[in-house]
Amino acid sequence: MTRRICVVVTARPSYSRIRTALVALRDRADADLQVVVAASALLDRYGTAVRYIEDDGFEVAARVQMVLEGGHPAAMAKTTGIGLLELASVFDHLRPDVVVTIADRFETMATAVAAAYMNIPLAHIQGGEVTGSIDEKVRHAVTKLSDLHLVSSQSAAARLRCMGEREASIFVTGCPSIDLAAEVAASPALDFDPFERYGGVGAGHSWEMSSEYLVVMQHPVTTEYEQARAHVTATLQAVDQLGMPTLWFWPNVDAGSDATSGGIRAYREQHRPEQIHFFKNMAPLDFLRLLANARCLVGNSSVGIRECSYLGVPAVNIGTRQSGRDRGENVRDVDYDCEQIAIAVQERMSVGRYPRSTLYGDGRAGTRIGSVLVGAPLSIEKRLCY
Amino acid sequence: MTRRICVVVTARPSYSRIRTALVALRDRADADLQVVVAASALLDRYGTAVRYIEDDGFEVAARVQMVLEGGHPAAMAKTTGIGLLELASVFDHLRPDVVVTIADRFETMATAVAAAYMNIPLAHIQGGEVTGSIDEKVRHAVTKLSDLHLVSSQSAAARLRCMGEREASIFVTGCPSIDLAAEVAASPALDFDPFERYGGVGAGHSWEMSSEYLVVMQHPVTTEYEQARAHVTATLQAVDQLGMPTLWFWPNVDAGSDATSGGIRAYREQHRPEQIHFFKNMAPLDFLRLLANARCLVGNSSVGIRECSYLGVPAVNIGTRQSGRDRGENVRDVDYDCEQIAIAVQERMSVGRYPRSTLYGDGRAGTRIGSVLVGAPLSIEKRLCY
Amino acid sequence: MTRRICVVVTARPSYSRIRTALVALRDRADADLQVVVAASALLDRYGTAVRYIEDDGFEVAARVQMVLEGGHPAAMAKTTGIGLLELASVFDHLRPDVVVTIADRFETMATAVAAAYMNIPLAHIQGGEVTGSIDEKVRHAVTKLSDLHLVSSQSAAARLRCMGEREASIFVTGCPSIDLAAEVAASPALDFDPFERYGGVGAGHSWEMSSEYLVVMQHPVTTEYEQARAHVTATLQAVDQLGMPTLWFWPNVDAGSDATSGGIRAYREQHRPEQIHFFKNMAPLDFLRLLANARCLVGNSSVGIRECSYLGVPAVNIGTRQSGRDRGENVRDVDYDCEQIAIAVQERMSVGRYPRSTLYGDGRAGTRIGSVLVGAPLSIEKRLCY
Amino acid sequence: MTRRICVVVTARPSYSRIRTALVALRDRADADLQVVVAASALLDRYGTAVRYIEDDGFEVAARVQMVLEGGHPAAMAKTTGIGLLELASVFDHLRPDVVVTIADRFETMATAVAAAYMNIPLAHIQGGEVTGSIDEKVRHAVTKLSDLHLVSSQSAAARLRCMGEREASIFVTGCPSIDLAAEVAASPALDFDPFERYGGVGAGHSWEMSSEYLVVMQHPVTTEYEQARAHVTATLQAVDQLGMPTLWFWPNVDAGSDATSGGIRAYREQHRPEQIHFFKNMAPLDFLRLLANARCLVGNSSVGIRECSYLGVPAVNIGTRQSGRDRGENVRDVDYDCEQIAIAVQERMSVGRYPRSTLYGDGRAGTRIGSVLVGAPLSIEKRLCY
Repeated sequence: MTRRICVVVTARPSYSRIRTALVALRDRADADLQVVVAASALLDRYGTAVRYIEDDGFEVAARVQMVLEGGHPAAMAKTTGIGLLELASVFDHLRPDVVVTIADRFETMATAVAAAYMNIPLAHIQGGEVTGSIDEKVRHAVTKLSDLHLVSSQSAAARLRCMGEREASIFVTGCPSIDLAAEVAASPALDFDPFERYGGVGAGHSWEMSSEYLVVMQHPVTTEYEQARAHVTATLQAVDQLGMPTLWFWPNVDAGSDATSGGIRAYREQHRPEQIHFFKNMAPLDFLRLLANARCLVGNSSVGIRECSYLGVPAVNIGTRQSGRDRGENVRDVDYDCEQIAIAVQERMSVGRYPRSTLYGDGRAGTRIGSVLVGAPLSIEKRLCY
Repeated sequence: MTRRICVVVTARPSYSRIRTALVALRDRADADLQVVVAASALLDRYGTAVRYIEDDGFEVAARVQMVLEGGHPAAMAKTTGIGLLELASVFDHLRPDVVVTIADRFETMATAVAAAYMNIPLAHIQGGEVTGSIDEKVRHAVTKLSDLHLVSSQSAAARLRCMGEREASIFVTGCPSIDLAAEVAASPALDFDPFERYGGVGAGHSWEMSSEYLVVMQHPVTTEYEQARAHVTATLQAVDQLGMPTLWFWPNVDAGSDATSGGIRAYREQHRPEQIHFFKNMAPLDFLRLLANARCLVGNSSVGIRECSYLGVPAVNIGTRQSGRDRGENVRDVDYDCEQIAIAVQERMSVGRYPRSTLYGDGRAGTRIGSVLVGAPLSIEKRLCY
Repeated sequence: MTRRICVVVTARPSYSRIRTALVALRDRADADLQVVVAASALLDRYGTAVRYIEDDGFEVAARVQMVLEGGHPAAMAKTTGIGLLELASVFDHLRPDVVVTIADRFETMATAVAAAYMNIPLAHIQGGEVTGSIDEKVRHAVTKLSDLHLVSSQSAAARLRCMGEREASIFVTGCPSIDLAAEVAASPALDFDPFERYGGVGAGHSWEMSSEYLVVMQHPVTTEYEQARAHVTATLQAVDQLGMPTLWFWPNVDAGSDATSGGIRAYREQHRPEQIHFFKNMAPLDFLRLLANARCLVGNSSVGIRECSYLGVPAVNIGTRQSGRDRGENVRDVDYDCEQIAIAVQERMSVGRYPRSTLYGDGRAGTRIGSVLVGAPLSIEKRLCY
Repeated sequence: MTRRICVVVTARPSYSRIRTALVALRDRADADLQVVVAASALLDRYGTAVRYIEDDGFEVAARVQMVLEGGHPAAMAKTTGIGLLELASVFDHLRPDVVVTIADRFETMATAVAAAYMNIPLAHIQGGEVTGSIDEKVRHAVTKLSDLHLVSSQSAAARLRCMGEREASIFVTGCPSIDLAAEVAASPALDFDPFERYGGVGAGHSWEMSSEYLVVMQHPVTTEYEQARAHVTATLQAVDQLGMPTLWFWPNVDAGSDATSGGIRAYREQHRPEQIHFFKNMAPLDFLRLLANARCLVGNSSVGIRECSYLGVPAVNIGTRQSGRDRGENVRDVDYDCEQIAIAVQERMSVGRYPRSTLYGDGRAGTRIGSVLVGAPLSIEKRLCY
């Protein structure tokens, strides 16, 4: 019998963290894959991830517009509320055998609650990790609503056991984002011109992609959203002052993202940084290829800790957003401070590449996740295991 | 400085589980109490708990209509979504220093998510317990969103520690519902006529309250909502066949509550049970006084396990709803089976009273909870403690 | 080219007012019919109209759960808000060429606004009539959002012209409810036992359907919802006192419907009326057949004014709900007064049958509506025609 | 007795159209003014009108976050749905005697439906006018939900009578936006530096405000939202080519506003127009003072037709957004065509000032509206007057 597996993708980075599993499921005769695209993954302001999903050949079973404007914390709660209303209708219509939710973004709570309340078994990708910010609360709350756990690492699995999850419900698969990194690592040459393919705004026509360059990704931290503008300004100053060609990616939609974007716009208007080019989004593989050839990643994206550790690319991680997350030796942590950031980037670049780490996966997560989702026994009854 | 403490009450039984804490908070000069009444606590169909709250002299700071009709699982998800939209506005308006959510009903997730996403410290009453049904998932997910835990028992506190909650965030206060039970236990005489004070429908005029009687409370189990009608019918048959005066309380609003209510209506229409009188709701103390004088509680309400264990009243607990919950010797568990239920009730009644158990509290929970809510340090940053 | 025509049915009576048009559309090769069932049409409490729709062989393209509990006016507004959220998603998914909304129930505003704001041409069935209650505001507001008007009568068409609607957008088709009445009028014999087929509660087994009987349908008036209970009680007393076999239908979901239902329940509990049997819903043709054989219709349903005028059945219309509506000679208006109601029923019954009136249609509305929906030019641009 | 009057302001331009009436109401002892600020009036992206409201000394009784991101038509429907959910709670809490809604923006339907369904008398400012776009449908639908009409002109009043509104419910007060224009016309000197006070981005430091300059305001047309980017580009080219100092205001939030904003951003990025400075918002009086001293207004804002006709400032009105609206001789209409726009601006400027027109008011609307809202009899019962 075919199992109907509904995967809800709510943001650009979440797609990278599930893509190879979606491919694996699409290729299996015993799986009927339903891809639901929701929230910022549908919005042009955040890079319209849905386009990459469709370009990769996935049929979109439903689209859920749910992002309330405002960029302050009440908007996050309301966005989740709208998502709950809508996803309940979607699940009622699609009648999946299992729903899959990815990682720890705030709006994934809508997916998790809707599935749990509708008596649909819930599978969670990337539980058991530790970070800062609201993500930490979301991740573990989703774990408690989930019936099946597909985790990136042994340490994540160990934490889930401690939290009282059943041994039989935990599967160490690795993270699908590492599958993509592995694909890129196999042939890392930069084979496209990002300016030509993705446009974006700002500098970039003056320098060749053969140059050495930085990549920056910095998101607001929802529990510190009032400082978001100051935080991004410190990074802008540091990077501007380093004077290297830089590819900068706009932030996720979150409380504070308006402040982060506003900070970037104000800085550009005032300082016209000559070496920084801004992109909204890229196809995951293109992005990783850029990363694989970068001198250093700067910001607070988990990419620095996950993909970069596999690729061996140095990463300067700023502030609290990733605090607590297991990390490889490629990462150096700094505060929201222009000086510290600039120094750390120079120090990291002086080292060059780091050895490969398989902390978050060995590159075969997608296939394993596909097997578990199709084959694991499904149940909605669970109870603390102590 | 006065601390603004916002307590969200969403249902009739939740009010009993917080009432003495509300009294304690109202009486403190260093607390500014904001009582929000939401969901079924506002609905006539479920006993309009809001009236008891106002009769007890509490000012209602906001009312949140959020219950979607339908009684099937999608309605539970949507009700929670509406609650999230509304409670975000309420918290934005009231600007509490801490939000308090009670126990494990499905719609409490709206309170918990709204507070967590709005960076308001969240206190959870009655985490760390173990039961069946969706309540189990809800309870532990709320724990993971909460910053402060006020639990009923040492075993609940131990479970929270295992789940990775910080020692300093856990307070064993006992359950406020036991405070009421203690008050009643101190002078248990039945000093009112329930028929006169609460009306209700069905039998009851033919027998005196001095008679021996049963009390029944049976809720649908959301994960088994398709059987809700059959389940309640088994209980109706058992009780009808026992032929004792019986006071029966209508179910909570939940997936399946329409089926439970429908089952009761159909049975009444067809069999006109002569000894069963049906009530919507009662003031908590009146209800406990009735209970204290009953021969046996029948059904699947947690009252059988909590208040009855303190009062020493026998309880026949039916089905899976309370499975896993720590219980005293007064409780006997049976299946959804007419025969088993009837036999168990007779067996329990043959014993009479049980000795007092303080498993869920010693009768001073309200004051303790008030002290913790006013005095404990508040923070929104947390992280797994392993 | 096939035109995608999306019809949104939100309540039991609305289905009767569109059924023959749905049949006509299903039978046309140039139409692709999308039936969306929403609001109380999905709820067991209000007769689950969706079952009749499916029994009639229509495929349901989407179901929209949207009814908020509470039965007070804020719940009507919120129900409409939920409907707007949900129907926008439904239309986005179904991509209809034209959306059809029926009559004037409050929640139809969700259909009308969603279609208008999404640039989908909107067709309105039964605009241009005049009544009391909130329906009056809803009906004309929907007219102003609509691009195509399919009306029951010449006087309705004249009113739309006065209101500034384009002549070319107005079509006098008659009301599809009269098509059903015509079908029944052609062979009116009562060929089924309503007690056996529909169950219901209350009296009825003691009398034969060959007896003379009354039919009662009384809804709360939303602008008078606080009196709903008193209003229904007056009718109950009048009917009880008449002592005739009576078939009574539960009210629509509206502000006040809980009060109306509560009034009925309380009266039954207290007075155990021996001659009144209560039904939730019936298949439209069965209902009309009952009506065609009734001595008199009592209440405030538009059925008394529309279907009964064609069938020649006497109707006693109570209160303000239908005030202003064009009516035939079969209707007598009375106040919410037990005495007046009883006298009026006796007076009407003394007359017997009335001559057929085609005020609301000649029995061929469905086919005409089908032709217009498929053939009329569609546009979303309109402007006052003065 | 004091009347509680609740005014819902949902956008920047709406505030200009009610401000003097709010002042009049605040100054009356017999009025208790409740100002609710909602939708884009709360959003930084659209100029945060709420700040001007607070700076003018009004207390904000409630804030309603309701704008769903996406800028496509489904988002307009959903935004309105969220508004309905929220405003119902706000009205339930504030218990106004009358609700006031302004003009014809799409989200005002939430205000109108919530008030009408909650049996609160509804007053509508600026009904009876004729334009293009979805505004036309919204305006007349709101009229049909309203109990009191406060209109700008005799021709608007005449149209309402034709539409069947009661004579006694229609009051010709003039438009409060003209009150502000009259205040500015009394002393029109430009007494502030807009760059210093409002910042904004783009050119402007090179030229003095004593120079001759243009003002541009162009909004997307919701029924043509797919062309929004092309439309704004034509205007940008025309204005850029005219080479005059230009003050350009960002668009309202509407379907298409992302495309309009995107078009502006892309043009700036590519062409770096040297003479155009972009503002988000201004205090109404500052804006009018700028306008009063401009050589010409360009775009499709109603300001060109209303305030400019009183001020005698030439206006070039582009496209269909204002088509149908009564206009003075100061307005010249052109198509979305770079050439036509540029020629029309030059032709208008060659004329200079136009004589004052009182088509939309004489400058005393605010006081009149205050008197009507406090003194007019209130009712929720209405019926077509034919």
